[in-house]
Amino acid sequence: MSYRRGVAATPLAAYSITLRVDVRDEVGVLGRLATAVGVAGGSIEGLQLAPEPLGGGGVRLDDLVIYCTDEAHMASVVEAVRAVEGVGVDAVIDRTFAIHEGGKIGVASKLPLATRDDLAMAYTPGVARVCMAIHREPALAHELTIKRNTVAVVTDGTAVLGLGDIGPAAAMPVMEGKAMLFKEFAGVDAFPVCLDVSSADELVETVLRLAPTFGGINLEDIAAPRCFEVEERLRASLDIPVFHDDQHGTAIVTLAALRNAVRVIGRTMEDLRVVIAGAGAAGVAITKILQAAGVGDIVVCDRKGAILEGRESYSASSKTWLAEHSNRRMVSGTLSEVMRGADVFVGVSGPDLVTAEDIASMAPKPIVFAMANPDPEVRPETIQGIAGVIATGRSDFPNQINNVLAFPGVFRGALDAGAMSITDAMEVAAADAIASCVSEADVDQGTVIPSVFDTRVSGLVAAAVAEAAVRDGVTRAQRL
Amino acid sequence: MSYRRGVAATPLAAYSITLRVDVRDEVGVLGRLATAVGVAGGSIEGLQLAPEPLGGGGVRLDDLVIYCTDEAHMASVVEAVRAVEGVGVDAVIDRTFAIHEGGKIGVASKLPLATRDDLAMAYTPGVARVCMAIHREPALAHELTIKRNTVAVVTDGTAVLGLGDIGPAAAMPVMEGKAMLFKEFAGVDAFPVCLDVSSADELVETVLRLAPTFGGINLEDIAAPRCFEVEERLRASLDIPVFHDDQHGTAIVTLAALRNAVRVIGRTMEDLRVVIAGAGAAGVAITKILQAAGVGDIVVCDRKGAILEGRESYSASSKTWLAEHSNRRMVSGTLSEVMRGADVFVGVSGPDLVTAEDIASMAPKPIVFAMANPDPEVRPETIQGIAGVIATGRSDFPNQINNVLAFPGVFRGALDAGAMSITDAMEVAAADAIASCVSEADVDQGTVIPSVFDTRVSGLVAAAVAEAAVRDGVTRAQRL
Repeated sequence: MSYRRGVAATPLAAYSITLRVDVRDEVGVLGRLATAVGVAGGSIEGLQLAPEPLGGGGVRLDDLVIYCTDEAHMASVVEAVRAVEGVGVDAVIDRTFAIHEGGKIGVASKLPLATRDDLAMAYTPGVARVCMAIHREPALAHELTIKRNTVAVVTDGTAVLGLGDIGPAAAMPVMEGKAMLFKEFAGVDAFPVCLDVSSADELVETVLRLAPTFGGINLEDIAAPRCFEVEERLRASLDIPVFHDDQHGTAIVTLAALRNAVRVIGRTMEDLRVVIAGAGAAGVAITKILQAAGVGDIVVCDRKGAILEGRESYSASSKTWLAEHSNRRMVSGTLSEVMRGADVFVGVSGPDLVTAEDIASMAPKPIVFAMANPDPEVRPETIQGIAGVIATGRSDFPNQINNVLAFPGVFRGALDAGAMSITDAMEVAAADAIASCVSEADVDQGTVIPSVFDTRVSGLVAAAVAEAAVRDGVTRAQRL
Repeated sequence: MSYRRGVAATPLAAYSITLRVDVRDEVGVLGRLATAVGVAGGSIEGLQLAPEPLGGGGVRLDDLVIYCTDEAHMASVVEAVRAVEGVGVDAVIDRTFAIHEGGKIGVASKLPLATRDDLAMAYTPGVARVCMAIHREPALAHELTIKRNTVAVVTDGTAVLGLGDIGPAAAMPVMEGKAMLFKEFAGVDAFPVCLDVSSADELVETVLRLAPTFGGINLEDIAAPRCFEVEERLRASLDIPVFHDDQHGTAIVTLAALRNAVRVIGRTMEDLRVVIAGAGAAGVAITKILQAAGVGDIVVCDRKGAILEGRESYSASSKTWLAEHSNRRMVSGTLSEVMRGADVFVGVSGPDLVTAEDIASMAPKPIVFAMANPDPEVRPETIQGIAGVIATGRSDFPNQINNVLAFPGVFRGALDAGAMSITDAMEVAAADAIASCVSEADVDQGTVIPSVFDTRVSGLVAAAVAEAAVRDGVTRAQRL
């Protein structure tokens, strides 16, 4: 495990460009070009050379794929290339924008429509009999329509990634990406539902009206505390699974990583002292799932420090809940203060909140999950050697805590089992299934969680979730 | 043009079964089986013979595909087969239900998600930049999300096909079928939105909240008069095309067929006397589009007869509109009475409302569009030789008036042009494009409308609609 490059300086695909350049056909020009990109901090990740010089000018056109670190860097790399003698820039393509052109998902027909008979069965007049069958026996909707495999990815756009309240239209690219992940990792058909609503009431009401089309509801990027109320009310009203991924997905993967991390440092869940930074949606869900998994000592901090019964009259319902259900030792103090001697730090807050000294003040070889995205609560390279296990939300470091390990398999299992809700036991089962993908032989401080590309994960999660649903008695009666 | 079989007696794919039978391996058994099906009125449309007799019993398993006329007939055919000596029935599969298993559409990803870099561009962190670009410049949603090619197929399930108010869950198979047609015929991504709402207010409000996800709204199977109000209010509030297919799709295809029918009988639009049976959504829309195309003399009938200003104080807004805008000669009387001497009968009402005598009382060689589905207002075989041109809504007769000729191309053209609404001129242009697909050489009493499988139609409709949108100045400003 090593962190050779600083977090901020890593060139990424997310900030990559394709440069179409014309290069004078002389010795040394291409070398100067490559050097200029490197000196400017860009990383050349692809080079498509034109086969032959064009025409009589001794010039050829090449495509360069260059990874940069941010938008300003992209511009400065382009400037650096323009300044190279013998090189002209014909086009600059932002690769991330290019792949978003026209959106990232489509609707596909599962049947041919080539003949009148195809039409007569899939549409009128044949379809009328299927409609009437569902009208007489509503449960048939789960067998004879897309409901069986289709999840709504619902947002109001109030807390999109770390971008805040950017609204439903601007949230679409995230929800489309989520739909891609559902399909790719678990074969679930998911569709974005970005809602222009202005209250929890409107959000709940709208999802209830939409429910006939869907077999599950994945809530996404909804601001706290609205997300708590929305999820609670939808779960109470609907007979299909409702899952707020920012809470439960994060909690499931955190528990999975923690299961293996305690194996690495030779501890048990029951004797851990855990400090969580962040009292929002994820913080509450992590607290709940860790408690369900046997962790007794959890202190959650907001900006003012440890949440504690009687510290104040909390306005947010999440903090009221935390004050009542966590911090049983009644610890008070700042985040720095309560971290002293703790075994586990879980960050679901913001960048650079914690110093290397804070980590050093914890119990020996502490577990540090610094999951703020894109910039973690503490930079991994500053605590190497101090922490026993480090995990982040980033894909370019070891131990990425990524929700994609959970939500596809959770819905796959829930839909397969005909689950009418998602129970705590189903979530713990999902976490255990994820943890099980790291073998006894492989588990070490750099490997407490499987890769997001481990193809076993979603199937194992689905099976475990379906089994737990049956055990908990929340499955729909199946027709014989 | 001929009508050899009666309407009710035609075996159809919509009522087809696959019978898995075991057949004793003796001369004559298969013949008896085929005869029994034929005597029972079933039509064998497929026969998959097992390659070899099974085991020692001299028995082999075959699959028979049999078209029947209705559900009761399906059962009686199965009984007839069971009664054949030497034949056993192992399984009866209703082919229409079988193809509906799990629904008819799915969501597909347009990009690979095989590597971390794929994820980093299609999802976090790369997607954040696309979100922020849309947040800063909302029109970019039409370029960087699925909005550019995606239509909601919206219903409340209050008037599904001819089945009435069967609710949103039971309407799903129709809306999925519609989505298939959008994709197959015009490459439009359409998604079913079946809403559990109980008023026009709730329906309008919900569609407005959903609009950020979609580039167009296709309203479907919403009962009159609610459909009028819903469409009108949505058109006023939204900057994307809103189209109630039951009204405008039907009207466009009716006008297309009428354009060619008048060529067959050598008349012009301006000198026609038209009677329309049915004062619902389709009747109003047909009246409007025929007037836009130059038809002056239109009388619309409801169950009581000709709608006429002053006949009564109409409670339905559609009838008030018709009383004010049609029947300029102020004709009164029953449908039979007002049909006398008319040139054109258009039926969008119910089965068997009109007799052969009614048709005979019209002007010589009248145009009869009997479009009630599945059973037309008058049976084509009873008026052959009387009518000059006959069209129905059925696929098993010549001249099928089918909305699928219109709606895919209409939305394709509207989306391609960045149209913010659908104007009357766009609808007339769509009708003219459909009519143009029947060449001067081909047009005759059996061919006034192209086949739904004529692959030129949707492209020509799209081009004509896009052009009309530009002409009408309703297109969104395009970025350079």
